[in-house]
Amino acid sequence: MRNVAIVGGGMTRFGKYADQGLKQLSKEAVDTALQFAGIEKRALEVAVVGNAAAGVITGQECVRAQVVLREMGIDKIPMVNAENACASSSTAFQLAWLYVASGMYDVALALGVEKLYTEDKARSMAAFSAAVDVEQLREVMERLKPPSEHAAGSKSGAGRSRSLFMDIYAAAARAHMQKYGTTKEQFARIAVKNHDNGSLNPHAQYRERYSLEEILASPAISEPLTRLMCAPIGDGAAAAILVSEEKARHYTTKPVWVRGSALVSGSDDRSVGNVNARAAQRAFEMAAMTPRDVNVVEMHDATAPAELMLYEDLGFCPEGEGGRLIQEGVTELGGRLPVNTSGGLLAKGHPVGATGVAQIYEIWLQLRGEAGDRQVAGAKVGMTQNGGGMVRGEAAATVVHVLSI
Amino acid sequence: MRNVAIVGGGMTRFGKYADQGLKQLSKEAVDTALQFAGIEKRALEVAVVGNAAAGVITGQECVRAQVVLREMGIDKIPMVNAENACASSSTAFQLAWLYVASGMYDVALALGVEKLYTEDKARSMAAFSAAVDVEQLREVMERLKPPSEHAAGSKSGAGRSRSLFMDIYAAAARAHMQKYGTTKEQFARIAVKNHDNGSLNPHAQYRERYSLEEILASPAISEPLTRLMCAPIGDGAAAAILVSEEKARHYTTKPVWVRGSALVSGSDDRSVGNVNARAAQRAFEMAAMTPRDVNVVEMHDATAPAELMLYEDLGFCPEGEGGRLIQEGVTELGGRLPVNTSGGLLAKGHPVGATGVAQIYEIWLQLRGEAGDRQVAGAKVGMTQNGGGMVRGEAAATVVHVLSI
Repeated sequence: MRNVAIVGGGMTRFGKYADQGLKQLSKEAVDTALQFAGIEKRALEVAVVGNAAAGVITGQECVRAQVVLREMGIDKIPMVNAENACASSSTAFQLAWLYVASGMYDVALALGVEKLYTEDKARSMAAFSAAVDVEQLREVMERLKPPSEHAAGSKSGAGRSRSLFMDIYAAAARAHMQKYGTTKEQFARIAVKNHDNGSLNPHAQYRERYSLEEILASPAISEPLTRLMCAPIGDGAAAAILVSEEKARHYTTKPVWVRGSALVSGSDDRSVGNVNARAAQRAFEMAAMTPRDVNVVEMHDATAPAELMLYEDLGFCPEGEGGRLIQEGVTELGGRLPVNTSGGLLAKGHPVGATGVAQIYEIWLQLRGEAGDRQVAGAKVGMTQNGGGMVRGEAAATVVHVLSI
Repeated sequence: MRNVAIVGGGMTRFGKYADQGLKQLSKEAVDTALQFAGIEKRALEVAVVGNAAAGVITGQECVRAQVVLREMGIDKIPMVNAENACASSSTAFQLAWLYVASGMYDVALALGVEKLYTEDKARSMAAFSAAVDVEQLREVMERLKPPSEHAAGSKSGAGRSRSLFMDIYAAAARAHMQKYGTTKEQFARIAVKNHDNGSLNPHAQYRERYSLEEILASPAISEPLTRLMCAPIGDGAAAAILVSEEKARHYTTKPVWVRGSALVSGSDDRSVGNVNARAAQRAFEMAAMTPRDVNVVEMHDATAPAELMLYEDLGFCPEGEGGRLIQEGVTELGGRLPVNTSGGLLAKGHPVGATGVAQIYEIWLQLRGEAGDRQVAGAKVGMTQNGGGMVRGEAAATVVHVLSI
């Protein structure tokens, strides 16, 4: 397959946009990416768009790419709508990459866009139900409740579907604490770090900094999670322009190359062969690299414990040593392997279908040396990991990309 | 790019399945395809699934592929959910082809599945709204009403969204009649032909035959369309297994090759450069073939006039001569170029997201010489054309494949 470079990127600030829909958010991200690359709209040859929830939020299914792109005058090119829950736009990015890597097209647009914020909160919550097997939702919810809720009785129904995911993350966090002695404070440190990073990112939804005590004292969600250890709900869009090696030279002197692209699904057991480990291994193999080559990573910190466990899954430390990694400051800005310099899902925000390309946008900035106050000095190789959905207790999709200059 | 062969196919009969959901329909189609090819589930390396309406019908968005495939024990492989309205599964087929053609994987599953039939008719109708720009739906509906409805006042709201598409088709049919002298009887002849073909296809939703008089006398939908000139609502699934050239030899002595794959969107003007013409040109170029090489075609006869106009768009006759083609029997079984031997959308049925792969399934059977009573003798080259969605008055997606033995 051919070498593929990212030559343009753009994103909206993530947040709650009462007055902007998918079209406006998409336009801002795509216009920025095109302008950056100096590429005319008519030079685009194919577009792949990731969105997870518009069918539930606005009734717009089927043709979201066409609806948002034609509004801004992008027309007459192949457009594909891709979904994989929270990994929708990293999936879109892989497809855009594949269209170029295969030799079929030379210039591709990958866009992620999401509008979760509505006045009707039940509708926002219903979007999360759509990311699991809706028939099994109720059954799974019962199984995953923390012990206290089993005793006390608990909430139920569609409004619980977001907290279903939080319950799953909380159960995994408790298991990690029990098995490896990981502490709630270590999880909280990750939230401190990511909010610190977010305070340096103009595109982050939340730019406040918090002390360890404030993270721990924020409202309890599901033991050991507090609210500040969980990603917020928000809106946003992120875009990337991918081109063939030959075209790259026309558009930039600083191409960022896609070295590995892996999409997998399946078991999320924390054992050898779990879904994140398999995705990382495959992406590293394709890139002919190892975790030691990586200088900066964006990973799917839907909760703070998720990031800690991903350190291990992705091969950045041995199993059970995630707590040590954050404790020793390895993953902070200034550490050996800064993680979620953008603020991650926790602080930058998590407009589901936009997250994957937004992660790639951050690594693209870092590898170009254009990440401003949160720049990782000398970063040459970066990685993104984006997870999405849950079916029969297993991850629906995990997408890993390895990028380099 | 590498040569890619279809080595297995399967589909459910299309119809109204009160007691079967996406999982059961998918299982039947995929099991049949795998058994045909003699491929174990675990040999699949990637799966792309097209579905258009589950988000609206059942609330299942985001992870439909994973939900239907894990239920039948297909797991731990990359799964992508693709949407392009009525062209969702031909889009999925292109992506599956691309995964193999690029060299990334050797064995891919393309699945289309749809469940439109529910007790709640308003919900079925809402699925059609999702295939256009929902914000512009009302405006477009006003513009496209036949003159009589403008005068008399008319229905409105979500229940009108399916007939929106019928109004668009009717308006194009009227323009064709006015410009080229095409007659309502010529449109009706296409419905006669496709119902005749459907009567020979065990997988067709409707297997009744109708006279020209019966087609014309069926209830009026939107002049010149009668009900029997319009595709019905139904459920179903269709699957295809695609493999690399090297693998093909292991699985079959009769591979069917994907010679051209084109996905485009944009203007649906009936002028040079319309969306169907552009898709066909691109697919023929890739295949190094011309319309004269084609022996059998499945095309998107959502209405009978649509098929007649597609004869011209796809290059099978000069502009304005579609009426002559049907009149002279060219596209009937036994004619020079049989079209919609399966019964087409009109008689085989049109479970939106399943239609694209079902078209490919029919051509695959024809090229293998296994189409039973509707076999086109000596068919060596076949073609499929699948259209989907409408945004700003233009086609959201048209997908054309050229296949050959």
